[in-house]
Amino acid sequence: MRIARIAHSEGFAFAALGDADGQEVALEIAEQPFVKPTPTGRHWPLADVRLLAPVLPTKVVCIGKNYADHAKEMGGEPPADPVMFIKPSTSVIGPNSPIRLPADSSRVDFEGELAVVIGQQCKDVLAENAASVIFGYTIGNDVTARDQQRADGQWTRGKSHDTFCPLGPWVETALDPDDVAIRTELDGDVKQDARTSLLLHDVPLLVEWVTRVMTMLPGDVILTGTPAGVGPMTAGQSVSVTVEGIGTLTNPVVAK
Amino acid sequence: MRIARIAHSEGFAFAALGDADGQEVALEIAEQPFVKPTPTGRHWPLADVRLLAPVLPTKVVCIGKNYADHAKEMGGEPPADPVMFIKPSTSVIGPNSPIRLPADSSRVDFEGELAVVIGQQCKDVLAENAASVIFGYTIGNDVTARDQQRADGQWTRGKSHDTFCPLGPWVETALDPDDVAIRTELDGDVKQDARTSLLLHDVPLLVEWVTRVMTMLPGDVILTGTPAGVGPMTAGQSVSVTVEGIGTLTNPVVAK
Repeated sequence: MRIARIAHSEGFAFAALGDADGQEVALEIAEQPFVKPTPTGRHWPLADVRLLAPVLPTKVVCIGKNYADHAKEMGGEPPADPVMFIKPSTSVIGPNSPIRLPADSSRVDFEGELAVVIGQQCKDVLAENAASVIFGYTIGNDVTARDQQRADGQWTRGKSHDTFCPLGPWVETALDPDDVAIRTELDGDVKQDARTSLLLHDVPLLVEWVTRVMTMLPGDVILTGTPAGVGPMTAGQSVSVTVEGIGTLTNPVVAK
Repeated sequence: MRIARIAHSEGFAFAALGDADGQEVALEIAEQPFVKPTPTGRHWPLADVRLLAPVLPTKVVCIGKNYADHAKEMGGEPPADPVMFIKPSTSVIGPNSPIRLPADSSRVDFEGELAVVIGQQCKDVLAENAASVIFGYTIGNDVTARDQQRADGQWTRGKSHDTFCPLGPWVETALDPDDVAIRTELDGDVKQDARTSLLLHDVPLLVEWVTRVMTMLPGDVILTGTPAGVGPMTAGQSVSVTVEGIGTLTNPVVAK
C-alpha cells in the first residue's frame, strides 16, 4: 500500500493512494496511519491534491559510507560499523518542494537514498525482528553542503540546513528492500545508479544498530546511505531519486 | 522568573516557581509558557510535585570544543568556527532521572553545560538580535560515550543514547549568561569549575551560527559546550551541574 500525506482543499491528511471512479485518488486516513490505517470515506483525485513529506519524523537518523564505492569516492575505506548522524526535523521537505542553496556554501551535493520509516516506538530491536517495527519505505535525498562537511569534520552543519532532507513521494508498505535499483538523475542525466543489495550494512542491521542507541518513534526515518556518484547541484536544476518499487522523488533546486 | 515543567497529582503542566502561603509553590501555566505565561490559578507546594525536563525540545543543538581548556584536554586546538552536532529529543531526561549507562560502552563521561532555550520560531537571527529569540537558560549535561565518540569519528552515536541529555531543573528567564560560574561535581567532588566568560563563541554568536543553518522552534535548546575537567561516571554515582543564577541539575547514574 502507498501512504502519502497530502494537502487537500480543506486541510492536511494522511491518505492511501488507490483507484476510484476510474482515476487515481487519495483516500483520506483518520489520524495516523501507523497502527491501522482507517479510511474516513473522503477521497480526492490525486491530481487535485499536493503531496507533502509522507511522514513528520521527530528525527532522521542517517548512515554514512554504507556503499563501498561511495566510501571510496569520498577518499576512504568504509567503516567496520555503521556511522550515524542526525538531520533535524526542520530539514524535511516533501516532493516538488525546492531545495534552497544556502548563501554560505559553495558546493551543495545530492545523495539519493532508500529511507526506512519506523512504525512504532521501539528500542533494542534485533535485526531478526526489524520487520516488525518498519512501517514501510520511502525515498530520501541527504542533501549536503560538502564544503561545510569538510571544514567542520563533523557532518551535522553541512547536512542540517532547512530543505536539506527531501522525503517522498509516499511510503510503500509492501517493499522488499533487499535488492532494488536506486538511481539519481540531475536534469535527466543519470548520476547515481546502484542496487540496495550493495548496502554494506543492510536494513535489518541498521534498525538494530540505531535502536541499540536511541528510541525510535512512529514516523522516524533511517536514511540508509548513498551509493557512488554524488555531485553538486546548482540553482535552476532539478534532482530526481528513483527507487524501484517505490517511485520517484523530484525536487527543484533554487538559490536561497 | 523560573519556569519548570512538572508532574502533579492530576497530570503534567508548565509552572512558574514562586511563593504562596509561606512556602515554595509551583503555579500552573496554561498551555505553553513561551509567548506569555498565563497562570491558571492552580498551584501546588513544590515539595508535592516532580520536576521534569523544563522543555520538550524538538532538537538539542550542541557545540563542541567551545572552551579552550577543554579543546586542549581532548587533544586539539579549538576550531575557528563553532562545530555543531545534534542530540535527539529521545535523549532528554529531567532532573533526578537516572542516566543509564549503555551495555556497549566502557566509558561514559559527564559534560556540564549552560543551555540556551529558544522561545520562538526563528531563522537567520543576527547575534545583536539573539536576546529577542531566547526564552531563558537552563543547565544541560552532554553525556558522552567517549569510546563510541572516538571509534566513530562522528560524535552522534556516543552522544545520542536515551537518557544522555539531562536538562533542568528549570528555565531561568532573567539570567545574564555572559559571566556566570559553571561547576560539575561527581559524588560531591568538584570536577569542572569554570566561568561562561571563557566561552570561545558566546551565546549571541551561537544563536546566529545555529540559525544560519536551521530553523529553531520554541523549546529547542542550544548546549553551549563544556569546560575542562570531563571524566567518567560509574553506576551508583551522582552527577550535579551547577550554573550560578540558575540552580543545580542532579542525576543519579545507573547500569542499563
